Amino acid sequence: MTLFPDMFNDFMRESLIGKAVDKGLIKINIFNIRDFTKQRANSVDDEVYGGGNGMLMMAQPIYDCYRKVMDGKSGIKTYYMSPKGKTFNQNMAIEMSKNSEFNILCGHYEGVDERALKLIDAEEISIGDYVLTGGELPAMVVIDTVARFVKGVLSNDESTNEESFMNNLLEYPQYTRPYEYEGLTVPDILLSGDHKKVAKWQLDQAIEITKKNRPDLYEKYLKDKV
Amino acid sequence: MTLFPDMFNDFMRESLIGKAVDKGLIKINIFNIRDFTKQRANSVDDEVYGGGNGMLMMAQPIYDCYRKVMDGKSGIKTYYMSPKGKTFNQNMAIEMSKNSEFNILCGHYEGVDERALKLIDAEEISIGDYVLTGGELPAMVVIDTVARFVKGVLSNDESTNEESFMNNLLEYPQYTRPYEYEGLTVPDILLSGDHKKVAKWQLDQAIEITKKNRPDLYEKYLKDKV
Repeated sequence: MTLFPDMFNDFMRESLIGKAVDKGLIKINIFNIRDFTKQRANSVDDEVYGGGNGMLMMAQPIYDCYRKVMDGKSGIKTYYMSPKGKTFNQNMAIEMSKNSEFNILCGHYEGVDERALKLIDAEEISIGDYVLTGGELPAMVVIDTVARFVKGVLSNDESTNEESFMNNLLEYPQYTRPYEYEGLTVPDILLSGDHKKVAKWQLDQAIEITKKNRPDLYEKYLKDKV
Repeated sequence: MTLFPDMFNDFMRESLIGKAVDKGLIKINIFNIRDFTKQRANSVDDEVYGGGNGMLMMAQPIYDCYRKVMDGKSGIKTYYMSPKGKTFNQNMAIEMSKNSEFNILCGHYEGVDERALKLIDAEEISIGDYVLTGGELPAMVVIDTVARFVKGVLSNDESTNEESFMNNLLEYPQYTRPYEYEGLTVPDILLSGDHKKVAKWQLDQAIEITKKNRPDLYEKYLKDKV
């Protein structure tokens, strides 16, 4: 549910999501909230009660759009992309991927009338501590992250298992051919064929980068390790 | 710098960013890394040294693309969108908006050869604790957030001042017309015209929602308040 359906065109055509849609592994239905307005001049927003800058999306077009999306179905969760929400993360994505269907409401302008969220029983989720123009990019971020956990979307040689955040450590540095480039060589240990040593080096590197870039995650790692 | 330049088309045409580009307030130049490869069959990736699933982007196409982007210029910061990076937030966006120019490298597949990051002196930033297919959506998230701090991009009745995260509190609920919708009314205090009371109500609501959805932010709020 969005006021900017055309923002999703490239996303649904390109890269991994494009392939997953083509193969019928996932289905993304876009609804234009503006199609449901009963306001004059196709308006979908109005001023904020109690003052404040900017415009707010009205409840009526959202609720009517939602009813069309649901089309008599029930038990389908609806998320509202909003900086006010709980912070989205990899575990949330795994949980969401277990549902066969879910809805996402994309806000725009200053946000939406609180009553719309109540009527559609929306759970607010945020992709991070920053403010965007609308919920469209965050919705794509959520769809991409969740889709990677849908069976068949990643090919056999890809995997979601060894990726960052799984054990509160960031990923270690990686290298590919050639062995030497611009005077820089691949760490020799990676060519040693000694799997135990390689694994130890990778863990040490992961710990180092986590300490440096994400002291908060490193604390969690230490806590969960004990 | 990306392997999927077409993912940016809609983004640069639509909504706030589309308008800012049209008005010449911001300029987004997309470079296709694949155009710079010297590998056979236009290849840009290869297997990971030391084992591991998936493919890694090679250093050469990235570094040659970077040199073309820089075109002899210096002092321009380059960011690499990566789950390994420091977590992007609103303050980082304000800092980035002070530069007249910056570069973003979008990774894909399992990531990029570490030497590429060293050669282009990239700072790794992450938009959140989840794993995406590529750096393209994160790059758009960063561009959108930063662009909102560029003079003229937001119109006069919009503003970045009252938004979430500015004082470690999430935004209070907002309401617009009509007064009553589906049996739900706007809180009467917002119609009282008593600005002091309204502000008090909004602060109380902001505290309540921050406590509920983001206990981590609420702790920061309490700490900074004292």
